[in-house]
Amino acid sequence: MKVVCIGSGNVATHLARGLKSAGHEIIQVWSRLPEHAEILAEELNAQAVTDLAELDVTAELYVIAVKDDAIPSVSASLKDIQGMVVHTSGATPMQVLEQNSHHGVFYPLQTFSKSRAIDFSRVPVCLEANSVETLTKLKKIAKELGSPVYEVDSERRKLLHLSAVFVCNFVNHLYTLGNELLEQHELDFDMLKPLIMETAEKVQVALPVNVQTGPAVRHDETTIFNHLELLGRNPQLREIYQTLSKSIKKTHQ
Amino acid sequence: MKVVCIGSGNVATHLARGLKSAGHEIIQVWSRLPEHAEILAEELNAQAVTDLAELDVTAELYVIAVKDDAIPSVSASLKDIQGMVVHTSGATPMQVLEQNSHHGVFYPLQTFSKSRAIDFSRVPVCLEANSVETLTKLKKIAKELGSPVYEVDSERRKLLHLSAVFVCNFVNHLYTLGNELLEQHELDFDMLKPLIMETAEKVQVALPVNVQTGPAVRHDETTIFNHLELLGRNPQLREIYQTLSKSIKKTHQ
Repeated sequence: MKVVCIGSGNVATHLARGLKSAGHEIIQVWSRLPEHAEILAEELNAQAVTDLAELDVTAELYVIAVKDDAIPSVSASLKDIQGMVVHTSGATPMQVLEQNSHHGVFYPLQTFSKSRAIDFSRVPVCLEANSVETLTKLKKIAKELGSPVYEVDSERRKLLHLSAVFVCNFVNHLYTLGNELLEQHELDFDMLKPLIMETAEKVQVALPVNVQTGPAVRHDETTIFNHLELLGRNPQLREIYQTLSKSIKKTHQ
Repeated sequence: MKVVCIGSGNVATHLARGLKSAGHEIIQVWSRLPEHAEILAEELNAQAVTDLAELDVTAELYVIAVKDDAIPSVSASLKDIQGMVVHTSGATPMQVLEQNSHHGVFYPLQTFSKSRAIDFSRVPVCLEANSVETLTKLKKIAKELGSPVYEVDSERRKLLHLSAVFVCNFVNHLYTLGNELLEQHELDFDMLKPLIMETAEKVQVALPVNVQTGPAVRHDETTIFNHLELLGRNPQLREIYQTLSKSIKKTHQ
């Protein structure tokens, strides 16, 4: 399949690499910034493009992986296209692509970093399309990548995206705060790494609500008091400690 | 080494199993509840004891793995003992054991569940002792288990324990809340599992502050607004969303 990749960020990069590995041909890479377009295009043996008017009109798949608020204008510039046009955003309804005859959403529910290789068998792909035909084609592509495939409409995709903020973005921030506490006392973040892994691995086989541990769930007010004392001079950490402890107690009351 | 295990909870169970596997002899298991003492004692081929006065006085190591507030009374009942007396608590100073001639702390920085086997190579052990001699012996034991060993005084151990609440207990609660959001919309928690693993694995090789993603760190106020709208009827989740987003912005300002 001939594919045009619109965007050069983390999602665009990993998805384009994955599609190429699965045997598809990336014919163009678009980015607003020439340098970004060129780096990714060169890697993929594609043409670098910075003007949306220069996009090849004969491709079978157009992957829009740009910032959410830029999707509508990209979609508009592809309005006469006969190929499939998909965006990759969790937070954006499929409807923004309605100018494109064959459109859908290809949302990879994963956190991508440029420096880390991605194993698509660990990237659930959430699909939506404006026709059964397009949905079937998108499913085939996701399966070629080796991804678990889910059909998810726009409303539920928003919820998934929100949940991902809790279990990924907020979790990573808690790792950051844990490290901050250690650094202040010259303790090594390495000490926490096995605990971080075990905590994540546990919920691969158990529901998190069933494996909650710590002072809040056992209503150990002495330890909570001592922890708040330790956080004394840091109102930001105290607020987070109190908010999350309150929520744990409420969940487990 | 002859070991007496005081306690029958998660830490006591895993530590006693580990010590036995490393070639030590567990001679007694104490628990307030006869049934608990008997189950663990039987598994370890040890004597079950429910009265602290019945503890064997000839062991070389007494491991106190009971609730924090019960440690002082156990320590008092061991005051004429010549063997090493250690507790396993992150939040309790070593000083509570000062009645015991040879004492220390053996704090495994990990989350234990009875149903999950523990690989001690992934359990950092934080040690403290009242003499170089005792510290050396405890180091040897921890290394026999295959654990990474750290010397950590009582003040810094409290900080580690507090950090563990952030990166383990609070993180698991965020997993719970993510699952709660999905359940309300009949979405499967399985969909989030690869994201949870990747988020934990990323910080094994990068500092979390350097891999923060999501709407808050990129000051994407539209998405934050939409997420708060979605959380509309849930003040508990809204408060957590706002508190953590504010903290992410502050960390990355």
